[in-house]
Amino acid sequence: MDYDQIFSKAIERLHEEGRYRVFIDIMRNRGQFPNARCFAGHNGPKPITVWCSNDYLAMGQHPKVVEAMEGALHDVGAGSGGTRNIGGNTHLHVELESELASLHGKEQALLFTSGYVSNEATLSTLAKLLPGCIVYSDELNHASMIAGIRNSGCEKRVWRHNDLAHLEELLAADDPAAPKLIAFESVYSMDGDVAPIAEICDLADRYNALTYLDEVHAVGMYGAHGGGISERDDVASRLTIIEGTLGKAFGVMGGYIAASKTLIDVIRSYAPGFIFTTSLSPVLVAGALASVRHLKESAEERDAQQAAASRLKELMLEAGLPVMPSVTHIVPLQVGDPVKAKRISDVLLMEYGMYVQPINYPTVPRGTERLRFTPGPHHDEAMMKDLVKALVEVWDRLELRLAA
Amino acid sequence: MDYDQIFSKAIERLHEEGRYRVFIDIMRNRGQFPNARCFAGHNGPKPITVWCSNDYLAMGQHPKVVEAMEGALHDVGAGSGGTRNIGGNTHLHVELESELASLHGKEQALLFTSGYVSNEATLSTLAKLLPGCIVYSDELNHASMIAGIRNSGCEKRVWRHNDLAHLEELLAADDPAAPKLIAFESVYSMDGDVAPIAEICDLADRYNALTYLDEVHAVGMYGAHGGGISERDDVASRLTIIEGTLGKAFGVMGGYIAASKTLIDVIRSYAPGFIFTTSLSPVLVAGALASVRHLKESAEERDAQQAAASRLKELMLEAGLPVMPSVTHIVPLQVGDPVKAKRISDVLLMEYGMYVQPINYPTVPRGTERLRFTPGPHHDEAMMKDLVKALVEVWDRLELRLAA
Repeated sequence: MDYDQIFSKAIERLHEEGRYRVFIDIMRNRGQFPNARCFAGHNGPKPITVWCSNDYLAMGQHPKVVEAMEGALHDVGAGSGGTRNIGGNTHLHVELESELASLHGKEQALLFTSGYVSNEATLSTLAKLLPGCIVYSDELNHASMIAGIRNSGCEKRVWRHNDLAHLEELLAADDPAAPKLIAFESVYSMDGDVAPIAEICDLADRYNALTYLDEVHAVGMYGAHGGGISERDDVASRLTIIEGTLGKAFGVMGGYIAASKTLIDVIRSYAPGFIFTTSLSPVLVAGALASVRHLKESAEERDAQQAAASRLKELMLEAGLPVMPSVTHIVPLQVGDPVKAKRISDVLLMEYGMYVQPINYPTVPRGTERLRFTPGPHHDEAMMKDLVKALVEVWDRLELRLAA
Repeated sequence: MDYDQIFSKAIERLHEEGRYRVFIDIMRNRGQFPNARCFAGHNGPKPITVWCSNDYLAMGQHPKVVEAMEGALHDVGAGSGGTRNIGGNTHLHVELESELASLHGKEQALLFTSGYVSNEATLSTLAKLLPGCIVYSDELNHASMIAGIRNSGCEKRVWRHNDLAHLEELLAADDPAAPKLIAFESVYSMDGDVAPIAEICDLADRYNALTYLDEVHAVGMYGAHGGGISERDDVASRLTIIEGTLGKAFGVMGGYIAASKTLIDVIRSYAPGFIFTTSLSPVLVAGALASVRHLKESAEERDAQQAAASRLKELMLEAGLPVMPSVTHIVPLQVGDPVKAKRISDVLLMEYGMYVQPINYPTVPRGTERLRFTPGPHHDEAMMKDLVKALVEVWDRLELRLAA
């Protein structure tokens, strides 16, 4: 048994397919987002513009967030020092959970160390607590939801993306007495399309299914208070569980779910991924609390982000670039080949100082490789025009076909 | 299907067994560890002494750690804004991985959002990459290792805790050509005993097995540079993978593995729990980097912790309290009943202002419920004497049998 050879071959396969990942080594400049320093491929850091951050609203540099984190750092210290049950439950955790419950109009909320963990831990635990449970999963659900469903060991039915007829067909085919859970996302982060939440809730009512909605690419950004698409569409109260993140629009790190008191209690008490892990640092919790509170009251960042996304799509379409359809803040450009996607990204970074990561399999299906732009409140008109100019030049040089 | 009733019954079972968890709501006072404010069961915060923190060396309040975190907060911002592959790879992450690789004498290291995730993601991915792999798991391995092994879907053999003969028996019974992985911990956190690492490596050599060592309750605290028991016993180079945490002795949050370049590359490239999650906040990474560097050079905290643990065991034994055998910094007191363990803990907290969490099933086997003390460099002689006096009073009042 030559272990090293097996591992080396697994790496070779990635090189052969052109999807070996190279992490671009950067430091963002707080106070000057989206500007950053890049440490890749040359001597010393060089200034770049970041076009692919999920700190969508630049809350990671917001003075209120920074101040709150600094305060907690000095008051409470660096880490929590334990699990939530053993010394790691600070008053800040309790306050943030209360704030998040209120954001989604639910009785309670529960913090996890990441959105990934919240999905994995909740879905795997929930389905285990319901013997014979069948989970109905949108085919484009995030890897963390897929992991949670698989790790629950329950039956899974995959419905075609956002296809209500297919979902209903699957629900109708199963035993009416079996426990059922429909798991889906509001904003699909690689395409930027949105789920028909109300209609899915109608089906859940009809077939007596629980609903689990991942809102990680929507919280902070949609709804009058940043409660996500479920707030915007006024359907939050119809969902059993809403899951969100503190690491994207809220600019910090961590994940959560919001649901009924009983449901939160049961996940809190039974999910290994929640129980057996050091709780979020109080520094992060304080920052997230300030961020959630700010975005509950301020629509300025959300509005500026939407304006930037619309404008960038417009400029790209005018230039004939292959913008994929998106009704949200996500701006994907189709490339369709992992090697070309990486090449465009490398040229943009090295020659133009513009950073956008190529998105390859397994994050998106093979053949749909793309560049994914996330313009935010601080990407101005001049930056966008420079970007589009650079893209047209690179497209031309690499002989990619323009859409026009 | 009445979902609420099913969830309510699951909660009732915990109440009936006396192991429903109530999180004690505290805020530690940075600069004055182990002192904290407690928000539970009364009006307004009340001062307490924390006896159950896993911030073992109080690095969470160390000026170097706090300064580094403040620096990163102002320089880079609150969160990383992305996965390691998509905008969330800061130069600090790269530096910390290099520091951790050097700490364990390995070629490379890889950061995860928690120790739980590092165990789950690495073990599940590793075993999947080796078709037909058999994992040999110590029966007292942590929940996160058990989750990783189970989620890999591979064959598992559970060996009796630290029992080399049993491990060899199991290894010898399997196909010599099958890929094998031995997974174990160095310090078992609820008992405080230590694995015979060298002898396990001998068996691994004999049966051509990979080895995976969880050092989360040892890094920072054992070895001349805080490299853990594997450094102390001079066996780090014999282990395939060493896993550690940044959330206990290093005082911050996060997890990691250290191993060969090829192995790190393969986990980095294939583990969903690594790939699809927002990377650690640069603020945490900066704090951990300062902490690891400090504990590489300073033995002061380690020595003070060992002295405190020895002294507390001595005082407890003199008082006839049922200290469980432990050769490390962990000081467990046997109670053997979940309701009594909780009751002692409640009385200590409410009447004496001393916080030690009861440890019940599933964290420890039923019938071995205990209180687990983790004295550190700042628990002084007076605090220890007060604690032992309080314990004797409570033991007496609740008619628990003293060991003497």
